[in-house]
Amino acid sequence: MSFAPILIAGQWRDAEAPLGSFSAYDPRTGAQLDERYPISGAADVSAAFEAATRAVIELRSTPSEAIAEFLERYAVAIEARCEALVEVAARETGLPAEPRLRSVELPRTVGQLRQGAAAVRDRSWRRATIDSKGNLRSQHAALGGPVLVFGPNNFPFAFNAVAGGDFVAAVAAGNPVIAKGNPGHPGTSRVLAECALEALRASGAPLSLLQLLYQVPNELGLAMVAEPRLAATAFTGSRAAGLRLKHAADAAGKPIYLEMSSVNPVFFLPGALAERGAALAKELFESCAAGAGQFCTRPGLSFVVGDASGQAFVKDLQAAFTASAAGTLLGPAVRDALTANVAALVRDGARLLAGGHALDDSRFAFEPTLLEVSASAFLDNPLSLGRESFGTLHLLVRANDVRELSRLATSLEGNLTASLYSATDGRDEALYAELEPIVRAKVGRLLNDKMPTGVAVSPAMNHGGPYPATSHPGFTAVGIPASLLRFSALHSYDNVRPARLPPELRDENPTGTMWRLIDGGWSQGHVAAKAR
Amino acid sequence: MSFAPILIAGQWRDAEAPLGSFSAYDPRTGAQLDERYPISGAADVSAAFEAATRAVIELRSTPSEAIAEFLERYAVAIEARCEALVEVAARETGLPAEPRLRSVELPRTVGQLRQGAAAVRDRSWRRATIDSKGNLRSQHAALGGPVLVFGPNNFPFAFNAVAGGDFVAAVAAGNPVIAKGNPGHPGTSRVLAECALEALRASGAPLSLLQLLYQVPNELGLAMVAEPRLAATAFTGSRAAGLRLKHAADAAGKPIYLEMSSVNPVFFLPGALAERGAALAKELFESCAAGAGQFCTRPGLSFVVGDASGQAFVKDLQAAFTASAAGTLLGPAVRDALTANVAALVRDGARLLAGGHALDDSRFAFEPTLLEVSASAFLDNPLSLGRESFGTLHLLVRANDVRELSRLATSLEGNLTASLYSATDGRDEALYAELEPIVRAKVGRLLNDKMPTGVAVSPAMNHGGPYPATSHPGFTAVGIPASLLRFSALHSYDNVRPARLPPELRDENPTGTMWRLIDGGWSQGHVAAKAR
Repeated sequence: MSFAPILIAGQWRDAEAPLGSFSAYDPRTGAQLDERYPISGAADVSAAFEAATRAVIELRSTPSEAIAEFLERYAVAIEARCEALVEVAARETGLPAEPRLRSVELPRTVGQLRQGAAAVRDRSWRRATIDSKGNLRSQHAALGGPVLVFGPNNFPFAFNAVAGGDFVAAVAAGNPVIAKGNPGHPGTSRVLAECALEALRASGAPLSLLQLLYQVPNELGLAMVAEPRLAATAFTGSRAAGLRLKHAADAAGKPIYLEMSSVNPVFFLPGALAERGAALAKELFESCAAGAGQFCTRPGLSFVVGDASGQAFVKDLQAAFTASAAGTLLGPAVRDALTANVAALVRDGARLLAGGHALDDSRFAFEPTLLEVSASAFLDNPLSLGRESFGTLHLLVRANDVRELSRLATSLEGNLTASLYSATDGRDEALYAELEPIVRAKVGRLLNDKMPTGVAVSPAMNHGGPYPATSHPGFTAVGIPASLLRFSALHSYDNVRPARLPPELRDENPTGTMWRLIDGGWSQGHVAAKAR
Repeated sequence: MSFAPILIAGQWRDAEAPLGSFSAYDPRTGAQLDERYPISGAADVSAAFEAATRAVIELRSTPSEAIAEFLERYAVAIEARCEALVEVAARETGLPAEPRLRSVELPRTVGQLRQGAAAVRDRSWRRATIDSKGNLRSQHAALGGPVLVFGPNNFPFAFNAVAGGDFVAAVAAGNPVIAKGNPGHPGTSRVLAECALEALRASGAPLSLLQLLYQVPNELGLAMVAEPRLAATAFTGSRAAGLRLKHAADAAGKPIYLEMSSVNPVFFLPGALAERGAALAKELFESCAAGAGQFCTRPGLSFVVGDASGQAFVKDLQAAFTASAAGTLLGPAVRDALTANVAALVRDGARLLAGGHALDDSRFAFEPTLLEVSASAFLDNPLSLGRESFGTLHLLVRANDVRELSRLATSLEGNLTASLYSATDGRDEALYAELEPIVRAKVGRLLNDKMPTGVAVSPAMNHGGPYPATSHPGFTAVGIPASLLRFSALHSYDNVRPARLPPELRDENPTGTMWRLIDGGWSQGHVAAKAR
């Protein structure tokens, strides 16, 4: 039986001694797809590391313009194969071709590639710092080893290990990538990698800048994050898998950036519900249902006070969940986890208000599900009731009064986001002021009057947050150029002779526009002659 | 028996149920000092966390000016008690009062405190980023929990857990500190903490901003780095202790910044030795002997080619080591480790060229020790022969030809620094170009024609490096404001109402001089009205 080829060192080749094979599903029908993909063994992993390590050496003499050109040509190649990509991604993920895949996610993906190219050319991401008096100069630079990227199941383009945000950040920072594609959409990863290879060939960047493996056994994944030649890992996925990888990477002293789980709590302050409860119920439901609830930032938990407005809000929300059709889920695992999570929440004291069951259908689907629980039950068991669940599953926590909200906020784990909705007339301000510092310390992104779904690719974004949402509170996975810093080392040059400095740290500004912190002030200029 | 009091919540109090006590030594005489310090147990640790957690809440409403004022008043208080501090530090560490303690380390320490105060006032360290179109705004901010600082033995002032670089960085970033003082100089830590308390009382900063424990058993230290309320840890010390703490902190998902070990390799290219070998031998010896070799950045390893100039250099170096008197070491452990390290290096194939023995003296001292080993022996066992050893112990690796230097460089672990010495006339350039990328990827700071001892407190410094020199290649422990970022979380604000934003992220520049990245450009101005 022949399997799809893997990509190593710019060559599509058969997996060597694969440990088995797998196929993806069409979630719309539940049918397994024909194409078979190899489960790679040690030989493929070794070949991937060898190629990527060669790329590290080639990158030393690769002009940064070649990397920028690669990223741009990659974007063009994706656009050229847009229809093929949308078709295969829709088949493998069940996500709607329109608008989601064609008009939202694909443009986002090529936008990220182009922003990465711009960051490479601009160079300001390096935060070059020059102390001209001390003749000390520093900047962020490539890590000196490959970056391993694990892609998640829920964004076949925008977070794909061969094309998404982590890939762009690692490459734009000057590192080669070993991509472990998500087994949910191997065909999508393959077509993307074909686009990448075409772009590599045309750009003069090292052909070994990217290797693609579709699947490895768990033990091999653990070995990869600890491989001596590896520089760092980026992982987006479940907390259980993330923590296993973290343990292995930590023991080897290898940086690992994990985006693991988040329940994205929403606080509806009483004034907001009194003022516009019906509209907010609609807004919350739509955010819960977007992408069939399969976003890292879908709101999984909200807090309301059970006054008259709160009770009306719950009723409105219940009606919205009940009236809505079930979206198609990415795979059987998402559906089965929903079944298990509903059972666990009910066991912990939550009460079903809508949905709660998998659809008896060949497609992968689960009823939009709403549960509620009392504040006191939640406080008895905040970690279990505050668990993440992919899919349209939302838990309402009903507080008896506003004083309980602070205790509820205090009980939360680290999250990517939290949203606070409040009245426009100021009546919630005292409560906001009480809650904000508690919530602020627990999340990467704090929102007002806005749902967390929709993660803008902006320099001021933080798609990150305290553990266990991620593995480090200081870094973002989305937002160029900030996301590049994860895949960089700080390089200081002490008394290094001028001609030997990297161009970014010489007296002359290498682009005429690069921002550098010179003697305490940010500047696009040269190092002043008199300052030396 | 009465023990020295610990500092908790602005009060000097007796340790509660201490597990024992200890005394420091006077390394100059080997005599144990009279004063006894408690080994704290769980009750003290619990009290320290309670106080520090209260400080986190108090800090939310503390104006940043109060923190800046505290840091400045602390500097003044230290200067006022300079003579007492120098006396107790000299007694506990054996370091010379003059120039080391009084004229070098104490000024460095108060300089760091004042730089920290300036960073608090300036606010540019926060790297505020404003996307005015998307109404997304982010900045680095305090972690939301206390920072635990473990101080090393070798800088009683400048790296002291209650006054040194990590303390300043944690506090300037807005976090309270739990200090675990180094047991080598408890009296110094106590006097410093007295200065700190005086400054706290006068400044309006929370009195619980600093707690001081002198010693805890290992198991309790491991529990502290994993304590749920803890935000992060900074540790400077041995690799063995650092790795134990890292394991515990990693398992709990707590950031830990470790500065663990570094052998600081020096490459003498042949042209440099031909040109100025005798001067370089003197320079290397002086760097090895500075502070009796008890610096994180002392050069422990150098690489030379065994040509005529190389052989002359080795002879000169041997003469310098042989002719020199032994400095006083910090404690018996440093001396005993030197004995063990010499034996291990000889076992691994190194040959003694000078010294090699502890002094038969009541003071703690060890002969200045030089060893050499062949390149092939080093390549057989690079990790063992490349071990760190505190004290004036240097290992010369003699290569047969320049081609071996790249292999030697490749065999090295992550280090804080590496130095490359080369001819001034350009004859070493090709070799430099070959070695530089290999060495660059392995160190935080790369030097030319300069010894690594002497770590300037500069924004462009990197006192850091790849594992196992530290635990993360992107951060520096020295250099304000960069060192503050270790103790910060990235806070993004999405659609947050203007009056609720922290002052640093509002349209108006809060100081008129703070640097912010507004819509892609660094600016000291306001957010332009038309940009909104």
